[in-house]
Amino acid sequence: MNTETLHNLLLQVQQGNIEIAAALETLRALPYTDLGYARLDNHRALRHGFAEVVLCEGKADAHVAAIMAQLCSGPGPVLGTRASPVQFAAVRERVPDVRYNELGRTLTWAPQPLPKQGGTVLILSAGTADLPVAEEAAETADVMGNRVERIYDVGVAGLHRLLSHTEQLMAASVLVVIAGMEGALPSVVGGLVRAPVIAVPTSVGYGAAFGGLAALLGMLNSCASGVTVVNIDNGFGAGFAASRINRKKYE
Amino acid sequence: MNTETLHNLLLQVQQGNIEIAAALETLRALPYTDLGYARLDNHRALRHGFAEVVLCEGKADAHVAAIMAQLCSGPGPVLGTRASPVQFAAVRERVPDVRYNELGRTLTWAPQPLPKQGGTVLILSAGTADLPVAEEAAETADVMGNRVERIYDVGVAGLHRLLSHTEQLMAASVLVVIAGMEGALPSVVGGLVRAPVIAVPTSVGYGAAFGGLAALLGMLNSCASGVTVVNIDNGFGAGFAASRINRKKYE
Amino acid sequence: MNTETLHNLLLQVQQGNIEIAAALETLRALPYTDLGYARLDNHRALRHGFAEVVLCEGKADAHVAAIMAQLCSGPGPVLGTRASPVQFAAVRERVPDVRYNELGRTLTWAPQPLPKQGGTVLILSAGTADLPVAEEAAETADVMGNRVERIYDVGVAGLHRLLSHTEQLMAASVLVVIAGMEGALPSVVGGLVRAPVIAVPTSVGYGAAFGGLAALLGMLNSCASGVTVVNIDNGFGAGFAASRINRKKYE
Amino acid sequence: MNTETLHNLLLQVQQGNIEIAAALETLRALPYTDLGYARLDNHRALRHGFAEVVLCEGKADAHVAAIMAQLCSGPGPVLGTRASPVQFAAVRERVPDVRYNELGRTLTWAPQPLPKQGGTVLILSAGTADLPVAEEAAETADVMGNRVERIYDVGVAGLHRLLSHTEQLMAASVLVVIAGMEGALPSVVGGLVRAPVIAVPTSVGYGAAFGGLAALLGMLNSCASGVTVVNIDNGFGAGFAASRINRKKYE
Amino acid sequence: MNTETLHNLLLQVQQGNIEIAAALETLRALPYTDLGYARLDNHRALRHGFAEVVLCEGKADAHVAAIMAQLCSGPGPVLGTRASPVQFAAVRERVPDVRYNELGRTLTWAPQPLPKQGGTVLILSAGTADLPVAEEAAETADVMGNRVERIYDVGVAGLHRLLSHTEQLMAASVLVVIAGMEGALPSVVGGLVRAPVIAVPTSVGYGAAFGGLAALLGMLNSCASGVTVVNIDNGFGAGFAASRINRKKYE
Amino acid sequence: MNTETLHNLLLQVQQGNIEIAAALETLRALPYTDLGYARLDNHRALRHGFAEVVLCEGKADAHVAAIMAQLCSGPGPVLGTRASPVQFAAVRERVPDVRYNELGRTLTWAPQPLPKQGGTVLILSAGTADLPVAEEAAETADVMGNRVERIYDVGVAGLHRLLSHTEQLMAASVLVVIAGMEGALPSVVGGLVRAPVIAVPTSVGYGAAFGGLAALLGMLNSCASGVTVVNIDNGFGAGFAASRINRKKYE
Amino acid sequence: MNTETLHNLLLQVQQGNIEIAAALETLRALPYTDLGYARLDNHRALRHGFAEVVLCEGKADAHVAAIMAQLCSGPGPVLGTRASPVQFAAVRERVPDVRYNELGRTLTWAPQPLPKQGGTVLILSAGTADLPVAEEAAETADVMGNRVERIYDVGVAGLHRLLSHTEQLMAASVLVVIAGMEGALPSVVGGLVRAPVIAVPTSVGYGAAFGGLAALLGMLNSCASGVTVVNIDNGFGAGFAASRINRKKYE
Amino acid sequence: MNTETLHNLLLQVQQGNIEIAAALETLRALPYTDLGYARLDNHRALRHGFAEVVLCEGKADAHVAAIMAQLCSGPGPVLGTRASPVQFAAVRERVPDVRYNELGRTLTWAPQPLPKQGGTVLILSAGTADLPVAEEAAETADVMGNRVERIYDVGVAGLHRLLSHTEQLMAASVLVVIAGMEGALPSVVGGLVRAPVIAVPTSVGYGAAFGGLAALLGMLNSCASGVTVVNIDNGFGAGFAASRINRKKYE
Repeated sequence: MNTETLHNLLLQVQQGNIEIAAALETLRALPYTDLGYARLDNHRALRHGFAEVVLCEGKADAHVAAIMAQLCSGPGPVLGTRASPVQFAAVRERVPDVRYNELGRTLTWAPQPLPKQGGTVLILSAGTADLPVAEEAAETADVMGNRVERIYDVGVAGLHRLLSHTEQLMAASVLVVIAGMEGALPSVVGGLVRAPVIAVPTSVGYGAAFGGLAALLGMLNSCASGVTVVNIDNGFGAGFAASRINRKKYE
Repeated sequence: MNTETLHNLLLQVQQGNIEIAAALETLRALPYTDLGYARLDNHRALRHGFAEVVLCEGKADAHVAAIMAQLCSGPGPVLGTRASPVQFAAVRERVPDVRYNELGRTLTWAPQPLPKQGGTVLILSAGTADLPVAEEAAETADVMGNRVERIYDVGVAGLHRLLSHTEQLMAASVLVVIAGMEGALPSVVGGLVRAPVIAVPTSVGYGAAFGGLAALLGMLNSCASGVTVVNIDNGFGAGFAASRINRKKYE
Repeated sequence: MNTETLHNLLLQVQQGNIEIAAALETLRALPYTDLGYARLDNHRALRHGFAEVVLCEGKADAHVAAIMAQLCSGPGPVLGTRASPVQFAAVRERVPDVRYNELGRTLTWAPQPLPKQGGTVLILSAGTADLPVAEEAAETADVMGNRVERIYDVGVAGLHRLLSHTEQLMAASVLVVIAGMEGALPSVVGGLVRAPVIAVPTSVGYGAAFGGLAALLGMLNSCASGVTVVNIDNGFGAGFAASRINRKKYE
Repeated sequence: MNTETLHNLLLQVQQGNIEIAAALETLRALPYTDLGYARLDNHRALRHGFAEVVLCEGKADAHVAAIMAQLCSGPGPVLGTRASPVQFAAVRERVPDVRYNELGRTLTWAPQPLPKQGGTVLILSAGTADLPVAEEAAETADVMGNRVERIYDVGVAGLHRLLSHTEQLMAASVLVVIAGMEGALPSVVGGLVRAPVIAVPTSVGYGAAFGGLAALLGMLNSCASGVTVVNIDNGFGAGFAASRINRKKYE
Repeated sequence: MNTETLHNLLLQVQQGNIEIAAALETLRALPYTDLGYARLDNHRALRHGFAEVVLCEGKADAHVAAIMAQLCSGPGPVLGTRASPVQFAAVRERVPDVRYNELGRTLTWAPQPLPKQGGTVLILSAGTADLPVAEEAAETADVMGNRVERIYDVGVAGLHRLLSHTEQLMAASVLVVIAGMEGALPSVVGGLVRAPVIAVPTSVGYGAAFGGLAALLGMLNSCASGVTVVNIDNGFGAGFAASRINRKKYE
Repeated sequence: MNTETLHNLLLQVQQGNIEIAAALETLRALPYTDLGYARLDNHRALRHGFAEVVLCEGKADAHVAAIMAQLCSGPGPVLGTRASPVQFAAVRERVPDVRYNELGRTLTWAPQPLPKQGGTVLILSAGTADLPVAEEAAETADVMGNRVERIYDVGVAGLHRLLSHTEQLMAASVLVVIAGMEGALPSVVGGLVRAPVIAVPTSVGYGAAFGGLAALLGMLNSCASGVTVVNIDNGFGAGFAASRINRKKYE
Repeated sequence: MNTETLHNLLLQVQQGNIEIAAALETLRALPYTDLGYARLDNHRALRHGFAEVVLCEGKADAHVAAIMAQLCSGPGPVLGTRASPVQFAAVRERVPDVRYNELGRTLTWAPQPLPKQGGTVLILSAGTADLPVAEEAAETADVMGNRVERIYDVGVAGLHRLLSHTEQLMAASVLVVIAGMEGALPSVVGGLVRAPVIAVPTSVGYGAAFGGLAALLGMLNSCASGVTVVNIDNGFGAGFAASRINRKKYE
Repeated sequence: MNTETLHNLLLQVQQGNIEIAAALETLRALPYTDLGYARLDNHRALRHGFAEVVLCEGKADAHVAAIMAQLCSGPGPVLGTRASPVQFAAVRERVPDVRYNELGRTLTWAPQPLPKQGGTVLILSAGTADLPVAEEAAETADVMGNRVERIYDVGVAGLHRLLSHTEQLMAASVLVVIAGMEGALPSVVGGLVRAPVIAVPTSVGYGAAFGGLAALLGMLNSCASGVTVVNIDNGFGAGFAASRINRKKYE
């Protein structure tokens, strides 16, 4: 049942072609029909301002190219995450103006970029090895219509590097703080700023880092109040959450 | 070195009593002096609008009473978390108008409540056993100057209970979603709303719940984009983060 | 919005008091209204044949007594799990004919027991320490209208104890197999019978049993095909699932 | 000792060629002889309706081909799981009409398919990445003589997708619900239906998904009563258990 | 079916009262009858030389007393493990000559001790906090008919304490080596002796000892070839295994 | 200080060239000299009957060949474990009569095999995938001078397969029981036999098998008294321990 | 064999009463005699400057009192750790001038304190809840003859509190840095100072702190080079290690 | 703001061009400016005596070559860790006199080696498989200006190998003790020496070694007081910490 079907049903009620009891019965099943599907889908499109996000990792190259080509037949913007260089090449053959962030492994296509709203989303990373995750977060926030700034390689073992950017920190609307190893940066940043802080643990490290578990636990136990956390290496999720927070401000 | 010392130093430079090179040397050590301490401290007070939050658990009853009494000699509001009924009694002797939320184990004192700013912070809980955490989150957000609404006992095994509140869900500015056991509620809520969602795993459950680990992992792996997570049973942290997000809107 | 509201809406359409477009708009919100709530609720009652199951653990004694008293004002049956002797005493004051299984810690009230349907639900336990979980499973299946048989203390280190009951094993409709420590019993039983086997790990054991984790992992990795598993110590869940399987047969 | 030997022994007793005491002694050793082996083997064949299931993963290609060829000299049906395309090619040379499900990695050979008995086994998956596990479950249930239906990509973050299939959900005899990441789908499904639900966690996800651990724990702690769980990625086990449950109905 | 039933069956065959085919059918079910039960039971009694071992922990005091009293009506020896002083008192009322090892928490009753066979079972412990486990192992081996020697408090951080007993180490038939914390003692002992070494991790330690996990992992990874391991704190199991090894020698 | 140095020291004492006090001082340092090294080394050779065991995994092929060639210049026997086919080829060029067990990945060279002593070491495995570990255990026990028997593929889900070998089980002197997945076989075997049982968990399995952890925990928590355990996949260690136990008997 | 025996042996060699070969044989066994024991024991006493450290936790009160009384009959100093107030009372009855640090739970007795050597051992703690561990470390270092300074409650969420003590940090000889929750303080301190840093994780925190595991992993993965770590809550170990490092300087 | 800016500011104060109040305000922001950055950077260079350490693993070969070339334009020494042979080749093209330790995977360039200060840093390893970690530690300590000695392959299962080096152990200033598997060596060494002991767990082992976790836990729980621990396989960190301790002695 879609909108048209529903329209027809109501028309029949209006014209007396169907009893109210029968219509009632039909409508009781309505919450779980395709109509709901379609409606929510539109809501989703309205909400995030672009059709869908494609997780490229684990998909065949041709598959990624086909999906992206289809999505890019709409108005965009379109975002693909965890895309390999080969996947980028495959997509570019069908979508010539697609853009690839090699470090962040993102594909973006935005002929009509969303207008920048809200304040600044500031992306911080503790080390250079965290850059892929940081860039994924930055590209996500950017394509979703946020002003994005980056401060990289400001780990807590060299505190002065972070402290020299205090003004920029304090001016940000939302902060995405990315760190591997012991994951201490969000605690320090959370103590310096007033804005919401989203912490992203990365799998950077070895041995007892246990693939990002150490950083994850560290961030969940942050002594700075109000820090929230996403999954290990989930730059996309952090960028997405930051956008939800940032763009809300000016509704 | 405090502000007065710094003033004197600059005075000596102005009066030519000290060489610039010597002053320069003194000032190089400045980032790590009490001056910085004081300044940041003021910032903190300005930011959150109340003196400090007291974690009562693990403190002696008399100790809690003394700290609360001291903080309540200021303008407030003051918040204490994880307070036992005995601690509440001890505090009430010294601060008669302190309020105790027995379920949420919070002490609040707010003769001059902060003005409500921003939209609504909506607190959802999956089960009745999650209420202590939910109430801690609600009291925290409330005392920090947010409009707070509660929808409790809307776990995903009885989906209709949640869906009957869809309008309220969609109207909220920030959502704090609390669940133990498998922790699935934030994923479902995150797919229904546009606002930021903060997920709080609780230690409710037994066996393979492993004290909240199951819910925590579930929330970190949420298939709903943009959900962020705080520590197990950390209602305070969620309420605090929600306030950071919500109050920002109207600056 | 409930059924009456919906009826009125359709009436207005029929009478031409409302435009189809407006009615359409109203109905689009319908999936998430109280109507859905009520309908599902009735479904639930129909499905399981009794009002609700009360998890007594963690609830105040008076609270348990009040809830049970209210539920026992209906036709029943009513089931309470993980009830302490003190809670039983509190309930008995208000519901004199409530029955308490001290080992299984269940409260049951069934003035009009459900008719026994389907085949036999057979409950096996590896050791005597597993009995509380076994009895919880047995009482759950019994109150839900199943014939229940019990074979206890048939751990795999004394295989002959199990093998002497082969005929009974093979005659069962569903088997609930309960074991702590290494949790090997379901694998052996699963290799002997044709009926569905539900495995329940218990927290019986010490040291590297890690509170039931060893048994849980053992059961999940069972070399007997088709064994399914529930949470550690979850006798209720196993009895409930066994009833779902068993009673389905004769629909 | 096999049936023939046993027959001869009894013949000798009947003819008075052996003393009862001596025969008794011989029979006491009987539980642990080849007779038991043979008998159980026949039972097994009778029970499941096909010779054996071949786990192809980790076996040499030629080995798989030889085993399958031998099994396919019987009446069938025969099932191979986790087979690579190369293994399929090797088998096809010897068993030309073997069928390969590339997604589910199953080999099936069923010149005389088992008659469909019982109700419908419904296979649900949360995401497209869960399809290999879902197809393994579906092929297993199908070859074992069950009507199988599939609903894929109905994860809880887009609830409408699931709810639009409510009727199909409610009509199923057994449900196999497959999900990675937070593994929330079985809880939602378990709350909607009356039939038994078998949950299958998958290793889909990254970071704190810990190879399926998050989904596994989530499912074990499901707030929907009566959900049972199999090992991570164990589509075969779920299909097998579903068949045990479904085919039992009409005995 | 017991021996008598079987005798009657054979008698009927001899007398021609039952067909061979019918008798054959009856006998096919035989592997899983009470006959097997009885036979194995006798085997068990023969094997270990005493009726049974009672795990007292978790049993009611009266229950322990009743079981011990019943077992002590036989010839003995009888062993009870993890018995509290209160349980000891309860047993002593009914079995006056029961002996209690307060440190090892064992109850032993052996009016006719088993003859000492085999060589020496040597019990070593790393620290004084490991003594309860060590004494449980020693009492178990002793009551089962082994010569037992003890060397306690010879942890590896004071190597000289161990090395001063080299001769005694080398003379032992089996060694039970007990250690908590890092559990290094079995590796050092395993490198010094030729006899079998059974390692017992204890829950002694705190923090990252994780209840004995550190010692357990250490022992499983011992660089000394041929060390085998039992569960954390399982002194009984180690003493039992040592007896199996030691008493075998002189059969 | 070596034997020669010590001889000279004693000579000087005998000849009066050095004071007793001075010699005493020198000798006090003796425990930690090369003399000790040499002596123990000889002990080791005497104990195990062959020079050394070479762990080939992780060593360069040429390195393995050189070490084996050197050891094979002695009387042997020599054992290499976890050797690749390429390593075998490299060794065979220098030691033509070296023997390779492809399944068990062992290299053995024994021109003068050790005489078989003691009873039988029986190697059991639950599944065919456990064979590499089983063969490593068997080859180790064999080369160390034990009679070895093998019973493979007798997992507990088809109990009859195991029970048909009961006599062989009961006749063994030591049993090495190898299983992956849930690791239940040692518990069943331990309940059937009187001889020492060494359990070996294998990494066979997937998902919640966690690389052998499930089997390891299962075996450590075995309800059969007296089962001892070695590291995951450690066939060598089990064979070595079995030899220590078995050969001791007839000293 | 002790010193006297050895002396006699050498005397016999000198007097020609024993052959060198025979004496040689006797001496080969020497590394593992009581001589070694005694010598090492003296070394230990020399090394640490006091008799022994008593871990009071888990010992009977009377037992602690007796041990302390015996040790305090020597010159001291004597240290007891993890002592309860009741144990302190029991000790004070026998050793009137024993001192108790209630927070750090240490007993110290030092009528002749060790001279202060080396530089300063600086103890830092992140929060007030870490004080028991911090005081245990401080008392240990103090009684072992080190100058000790304390800076408490300087967690990284309020960075200014730490930075205001930069000079004191830089002047310390060794730093013991104590933190629970995310354990980030050692990374920040390690980046500021040149001296060795010993990190101590504490069990302070809840939920995903997992009893100190989060802090432990954080410290092991510290991005500040050269930070070393001790066990969770191991203040004594940290103080001991700090003393080893600090007192070495001036040898 | 850099030093020049600060100089200018002070100049303006001296010349009366700016009010003290205004200068004061400017200076209050100073802690978080580039000045701090520069100062600390110089400190760092002064402290460790060389520019920076390059972690080569995970960096592109050309990237490593470029960074090393730039650093080697200074006075050195320069250290690179975890460098592959290919990276070495790439660096050598630009820095001909760079040295490569193939086992330890370190790149060192030190035309003007730092003077050797302090005592000896002694590196011990338990097995030959631990050598890569041991050599990384040794090269790190060496290039940082320490005398380094090595004793390899002295695992605790052959204690004599270690004890024969007792004098060398006792003479060392700092000991770095490296072991995989059960990680017992630091406990034994810690009991023999007086100097600080830094323990390094390695990932050597298999099965329940869990990638070094067993060794790590063992070392954290060492029964030898005062042992401190670094991350799994972190030879660099141990060498760095050893240098901090050793070089401090003679300031």
